[in-house]
Amino acid sequence: MNAPAEVLLSPTQRSALLADLRNALPARCVLAEAEDLRPYECDGLSAYRRLPAVAVLPETIEQIRAVLRVCRTHNVPVVARGAGTGLSGGALPLSNGVLLGLAKFNRILEIDPDNRVARVQPGVRNLAISEAAAAHGLYYAPDPSSQIACSIGGNVAENSGGVHCLKYGLTVHNVQAIKLLTMDGELLEIGECEKPGGLDNPGYDLLAVLTGSEGLLGLVVEVTVRLLPKPERAQVLLAAYDSVERAGEAVAAIIGAGVIPAGLEMMDNPAIRAAEAFVHAGYPEDAAAILLCELDGTNEEVSEEIMRVRQLLLDSGATEVRTAADEAQRQRFWAGRKGAFPAVGRISPDYYCMDGTIPRRELGRVLGRIEELSVEHGLQVANVFHAGDGNLHPLILFDANRPGELERAEAFGTAILDLCVAVGGTVTGEHGVGIEKLAPMCGQFTAGELEQFHAVKAAFDPAGLLNPGKAVPTLHRCAEFGRMHVHHGEVKFPDLPRF
Amino acid sequence: MNAPAEVLLSPTQRSALLADLRNALPARCVLAEAEDLRPYECDGLSAYRRLPAVAVLPETIEQIRAVLRVCRTHNVPVVARGAGTGLSGGALPLSNGVLLGLAKFNRILEIDPDNRVARVQPGVRNLAISEAAAAHGLYYAPDPSSQIACSIGGNVAENSGGVHCLKYGLTVHNVQAIKLLTMDGELLEIGECEKPGGLDNPGYDLLAVLTGSEGLLGLVVEVTVRLLPKPERAQVLLAAYDSVERAGEAVAAIIGAGVIPAGLEMMDNPAIRAAEAFVHAGYPEDAAAILLCELDGTNEEVSEEIMRVRQLLLDSGATEVRTAADEAQRQRFWAGRKGAFPAVGRISPDYYCMDGTIPRRELGRVLGRIEELSVEHGLQVANVFHAGDGNLHPLILFDANRPGELERAEAFGTAILDLCVAVGGTVTGEHGVGIEKLAPMCGQFTAGELEQFHAVKAAFDPAGLLNPGKAVPTLHRCAEFGRMHVHHGEVKFPDLPRF
Repeated sequence: MNAPAEVLLSPTQRSALLADLRNALPARCVLAEAEDLRPYECDGLSAYRRLPAVAVLPETIEQIRAVLRVCRTHNVPVVARGAGTGLSGGALPLSNGVLLGLAKFNRILEIDPDNRVARVQPGVRNLAISEAAAAHGLYYAPDPSSQIACSIGGNVAENSGGVHCLKYGLTVHNVQAIKLLTMDGELLEIGECEKPGGLDNPGYDLLAVLTGSEGLLGLVVEVTVRLLPKPERAQVLLAAYDSVERAGEAVAAIIGAGVIPAGLEMMDNPAIRAAEAFVHAGYPEDAAAILLCELDGTNEEVSEEIMRVRQLLLDSGATEVRTAADEAQRQRFWAGRKGAFPAVGRISPDYYCMDGTIPRRELGRVLGRIEELSVEHGLQVANVFHAGDGNLHPLILFDANRPGELERAEAFGTAILDLCVAVGGTVTGEHGVGIEKLAPMCGQFTAGELEQFHAVKAAFDPAGLLNPGKAVPTLHRCAEFGRMHVHHGEVKFPDLPRF
Repeated sequence: MNAPAEVLLSPTQRSALLADLRNALPARCVLAEAEDLRPYECDGLSAYRRLPAVAVLPETIEQIRAVLRVCRTHNVPVVARGAGTGLSGGALPLSNGVLLGLAKFNRILEIDPDNRVARVQPGVRNLAISEAAAAHGLYYAPDPSSQIACSIGGNVAENSGGVHCLKYGLTVHNVQAIKLLTMDGELLEIGECEKPGGLDNPGYDLLAVLTGSEGLLGLVVEVTVRLLPKPERAQVLLAAYDSVERAGEAVAAIIGAGVIPAGLEMMDNPAIRAAEAFVHAGYPEDAAAILLCELDGTNEEVSEEIMRVRQLLLDSGATEVRTAADEAQRQRFWAGRKGAFPAVGRISPDYYCMDGTIPRRELGRVLGRIEELSVEHGLQVANVFHAGDGNLHPLILFDANRPGELERAEAFGTAILDLCVAVGGTVTGEHGVGIEKLAPMCGQFTAGELEQFHAVKAAFDPAGLLNPGKAVPTLHRCAEFGRMHVHHGEVKFPDLPRF
């Protein structure tokens, strides 16, 4: 998984860049030695590593503006980084570029319980927002697995989800406004920075296009998020199935009945066994699949829905349905799910976490095909996923020290993502495209759609200095990937796998 | 309210344009005589009128593409039109341009109850979607007052709201995907056209930026909307107040208590009296203000919330709280609110319907100031509004036949919108900017923000042929409006009114 080769800065170019950065920022904010740059060589997708030419850790918006000015002058690209927990390599540095870390922007500027918003700097940790809001009985809903560490700026860049996004939405649904520095140093207020109340805003609605834009359109320097009242009660049901298809049908039945659980998660047998060995959650280890269905709301609502969902689970062929007896058991049920990734890490030297979406009705069929692909590629897979919103996280088990296994894992992963697209899904549910999924993007979109994306990018960053080479492949890259060919002057994409 | 003067096409230019359009479309689809063009001279903002050079009524996507090709060749602008019910002049034709009517795109392509979506052509009426979905117990939530007539394509262009958008969101929250023809004739699928299930999509999220873009970015040729299950029960409370401030505080108290009503509407005394005289809704005519608060959901939920809200209304100083005794009375309560605009039309020769938003907490203060402005401008005003989401609709009463009254009404309207911005609101809640609100947009956004909007426009329509001159003012127009001046090389906007 080597990132594409790059042109390096010449020593003279690098010295000139460094001199200007040191001129613009306090000395403590500019890192140039290899040992200081090492912590920034990768994000959560650690298979890709690269040292940046320089790293800067500005402390004020004016300093960020100064860094952008220096980068424009030297025509040097900039990669922004939050907590570095991203899973698609969105914060992978460029050898000829500046890594701009936002870790020092870690202040909660305002908790406004009346308007139920929090105004925070981009480096504030996701969980820290809920902790600060707890005194008012409020919390910030999106909860990526990395929520202890990941930053809200990174969440905005990747449009992060989490277990609760089925009911409460992704980052885009929970952000009210952002302040953005464009590459030109212009400060834009997008959304309702200081005007809570109205639902709509005049002018083009740029908030959604910026959320999930993976650092290609601008630098987020402030975020206003919506806060929700903590639900009076949360309860979780655990249902066991002797086939993944039946578990898949149960998911469709619950959603079809109009219930919107706070979380609806599925794990297959390899994932169950790994989690159980690690966390002792009390999962039935012989089940082919389990569902965890959380319901929250008022006491009455939860009681009523628990009864309905229990019946739906039994009707859909569950071999066993359990309700957490108390809060401690509820926490244990969730600990197994939340610990599934490290649990798999215990039974395999390496694993590769995929992230794709499929229509819910394809759940059973897709899992069956992933099992076949596992045999074809000679690698085991454990499936953990946000079943309610059709977001798969297959974990491909491999050993990077065995020759060829890494490549086989990559090929297996690509086959899974192609499969997602073939059944009408997408190549990323919540982890973003980054550097990892440029190839499958070529199959996801038409040439015209990709060109429209690049036009939008150019509308924000005409010189292409912000995180270039990520998120949206050029048609040229698609051609290199063998994902596109030109036929009688018309761009054609190869057929997706039949399924 | 004359639209700015325009360059006309020369007779030769017009003949050449007509010949090419007639070549591309069946004869019945091309209108060129003044009497045939008359119905297209204005939309719902009838104070602005203009005949287009030509009108076309294409019947297929290929024909729309052909029209766009002809317009590109002749470098002639295009204005799309749905049902023509818009209230900000977004569909006002250009004298030198083509008016492209989408009335013939009136087919419901698919109702998919499993995935709870409807796929429809842009000319389908808003209400027709709910009628078609009713057989499955489903409906389409956004309900602008014009829902009998307005088309879904127009709803997407204007990001339309309605009484129920407080709980169920605007058009942007209820659209899952659109198919868009760019000015270049490229067909883009934006959102999840055929992939329901996943919450997120890779690539830039362009759905929100297109929704509400007022026909400046592309032509919507197909819309996939989300359908909701009809609530089991809906009930409405009517509360009377002896001051608008107290009614405003009640709104804040309800929202603050975490109740999200399906609708929360407020009318002041002039609006109450006009509606009562027209519809005999049974409103208390001596009240300074009334609130209508609708709650929907399951039987239990509604019963519980009715009790809570009744208490909140009484605690906030309501002089009277009534619950509709039966469905007939509930319909009557709403008939007064829904008939408020025509009711005001009965007591005044003309009225000018404003549309702005304010933070909910400013409700009382803003209404007080509007009353003062009414005296200053010597014109009466009736206030009707979506109180729950802070969306004001002051109706300014005037007589266009009395010299100077139209201009006074305009000046009064501008003062109201400036007031909205001054307290932290916006110049349009749901009617769009169109041609009507270009001037206040100059106060709403900074020069940098307006320039970013134009860059986004250019990313979709570099030649600027789609509905030019609407929605986002150029900096040049802002200068003409006297809304901007350049001071020592820096763009400055005049101060907003102090408040």
